[in-house]
Amino acid sequence: MGERILPEKPIITITTDFGEQDYFVGVMKGVILNINPEAVIVDINHQVNSFDVFDGAFTLAQSYLYFPSDTIHLVVVDPGVGSVRRPILIRTTNYKFVAPDNGVLSLIYEREERVEVRHVTADHYFLHPVSNTFHGRDIFAPVAAWLSRGVELEKFGEVITDYAKFTSPRPKREGENLVKGVAIKVDKFGNVITNIRPEDVPQLFAENPPRFRIVINKHEVTRLCSSYSMGEPSEIFAIVGSSGFLEIGANRKSAARILNVNRGAEVAVLLGNEAAAAS
Amino acid sequence: MGERILPEKPIITITTDFGEQDYFVGVMKGVILNINPEAVIVDINHQVNSFDVFDGAFTLAQSYLYFPSDTIHLVVVDPGVGSVRRPILIRTTNYKFVAPDNGVLSLIYEREERVEVRHVTADHYFLHPVSNTFHGRDIFAPVAAWLSRGVELEKFGEVITDYAKFTSPRPKREGENLVKGVAIKVDKFGNVITNIRPEDVPQLFAENPPRFRIVINKHEVTRLCSSYSMGEPSEIFAIVGSSGFLEIGANRKSAARILNVNRGAEVAVLLGNEAAAAS
Amino acid sequence: MGERILPEKPIITITTDFGEQDYFVGVMKGVILNINPEAVIVDINHQVNSFDVFDGAFTLAQSYLYFPSDTIHLVVVDPGVGSVRRPILIRTTNYKFVAPDNGVLSLIYEREERVEVRHVTADHYFLHPVSNTFHGRDIFAPVAAWLSRGVELEKFGEVITDYAKFTSPRPKREGENLVKGVAIKVDKFGNVITNIRPEDVPQLFAENPPRFRIVINKHEVTRLCSSYSMGEPSEIFAIVGSSGFLEIGANRKSAARILNVNRGAEVAVLLGNEAAAAS
Repeated sequence: MGERILPEKPIITITTDFGEQDYFVGVMKGVILNINPEAVIVDINHQVNSFDVFDGAFTLAQSYLYFPSDTIHLVVVDPGVGSVRRPILIRTTNYKFVAPDNGVLSLIYEREERVEVRHVTADHYFLHPVSNTFHGRDIFAPVAAWLSRGVELEKFGEVITDYAKFTSPRPKREGENLVKGVAIKVDKFGNVITNIRPEDVPQLFAENPPRFRIVINKHEVTRLCSSYSMGEPSEIFAIVGSSGFLEIGANRKSAARILNVNRGAEVAVLLGNEAAAAS
Repeated sequence: MGERILPEKPIITITTDFGEQDYFVGVMKGVILNINPEAVIVDINHQVNSFDVFDGAFTLAQSYLYFPSDTIHLVVVDPGVGSVRRPILIRTTNYKFVAPDNGVLSLIYEREERVEVRHVTADHYFLHPVSNTFHGRDIFAPVAAWLSRGVELEKFGEVITDYAKFTSPRPKREGENLVKGVAIKVDKFGNVITNIRPEDVPQLFAENPPRFRIVINKHEVTRLCSSYSMGEPSEIFAIVGSSGFLEIGANRKSAARILNVNRGAEVAVLLGNEAAAAS
Repeated sequence: MGERILPEKPIITITTDFGEQDYFVGVMKGVILNINPEAVIVDINHQVNSFDVFDGAFTLAQSYLYFPSDTIHLVVVDPGVGSVRRPILIRTTNYKFVAPDNGVLSLIYEREERVEVRHVTADHYFLHPVSNTFHGRDIFAPVAAWLSRGVELEKFGEVITDYAKFTSPRPKREGENLVKGVAIKVDKFGNVITNIRPEDVPQLFAENPPRFRIVINKHEVTRLCSSYSMGEPSEIFAIVGSSGFLEIGANRKSAARILNVNRGAEVAVLLGNEAAAAS
């Protein structure tokens, strides 16, 4: 095969809360290929929690940077479909995104330095008649497909600055030795992903870390592992996961099930005296 | 990238009841690529209800028209695998279909003007030995793949006219002000899709619609929304969905769960006096 | 379209226990396309039982031969991620495999005549920083992608011979008329796949088979069908499935649910006198 120069094909990723039990995603792919048969379509995830804009934003934030430059990321988590919420198209330094203007791109706005956001109004790129219930098919997929064919961004609509944006939940530092965060996701293996990053609790990662306890649903976690397989049978431990967040996990077990926690659970990290005091 | 003329690659879609937990669909893709490495394979849905020919027909009917002309639609919902039911290949004006002859293409026969159906008998296109339990792998996938390489339809077998066909369940009009239909599907969001189309209850969509009630599992629905987001919290409403059927939905909730209904539930639309009388 | 000579594109299949509810598989695809935009990526299955190396091995064994020569099979069932278990790369006569060295390729070693196994140590092919929890993204996907670009196997690391390997569970013959096996899988339709092959009970497939009984969770199965549709309503029967193993199935029903059995259940085949005696 050798390392020849490859002609680049446009890549479109799709992230939705459409699940796998319906034809919704398949139809979107048909629409895209009908407009651009050259498009390479990649599923990121279709099991974003139904109607859950934050979960969609998190999924996208964990994924988009691993794709080649010029990838178009199509995101349809769209509880406001058919209402006044706008379809938008954004450009960052390396990527383009097509999505409803409901905050699902918030983490992109947060992480990217240069962001240009456009309200998509050029409805001759839409599939007609446009339904009120499936803009993934009628608006977002066709816009992504035309974009992948090289249509300039200006042709889709004007730049806007009043786009919807939420601030991602940050852990709170309460005094020097207490940090309170929250579970933002439980993954397939039952690992509980928190919103706490190493830089939020740098002491934990110091050469000589202080005594610590992590409290979640009344359980206490007192060990930080560097791999899942370090855990003893049935032990619950903390670990920095592949997304860069502190996770609560177990070795070949579901920590979420053992702890009986779900997204939204409070996670407190107690350090030094605080850890000792509260025992 | 620009809008150059693109060399068309053959597209094969796959719709099955094989689910995602086994290797069945992956193997079918291997078989296809082994015969035609150029094929672009697109999943429509693999979670058709097990053994449910009607559900497969419905899935396909909602999807096939969104794909480019010349797409080959491969459908394997095949409770009679290994029995005498025939493998068939059909051509419509714009598409080809490969499927078992068990009625799963009924809605295609219903909607398409020109349909040519062939009994696939040319077993040198099959994978040998042909198993009795996985014709998706041994018959349907290879036939679709050879078809995508340009093999003429005549080479696969003779035209037949006695193919299996069911009539899709139509709503019944009982008097001027009562239409009785049925739930044909519950989607991922819990929307209950009925078999009632706007043309079955035109009064509902008149400029001045009469009073109406929709009764489903003893619940009464009295509002027609044009988008899901118009619904009040916990309100159950009617809406014309993206598939062109009347749906019973809720805003960011599962109507099916709230109403405790599933596929097969009766749906009655009462209009005018009928709506008033029955209250 | 015609039967022209096609330029071959490299195919990479992916088999994991990552499920569909996270972005893990999507990210791996991004990583692959970033390194080799020409790669054709095919999902075999992502619902291998969590942490279940045998289930991964079984899935792969049922699938890999259906893919074109030169296909690269990427397998990530990796409970030991981040520990000392090695990443490996193997070459057989027609395929290449990239996987953790935990036995997940055991059935390939068993079935293939020529196998060359290498310990992947050339970490300049990895994604950096390499996490301790997601080698699918940081090691296995990039190695498969570079491999698909034609990098020679020798460049990834040295040949090893002490790779991990389990022996697949074989049925036991206890006397002439009793064979004891085990359920190795329940498929989506509820068919119970055993580890018994026709050659383990040749009498059953003789021209004049003796009386027989198959006992599973105290139920007795006394009929061998050649297709699912031969079964009477609610009848439980035996059948040789598409994977070449004896299965316990039912016609349009889940045998596993009716019998209340799961993977690991004991399956005894009693023949002739043994079958009569035990009644």
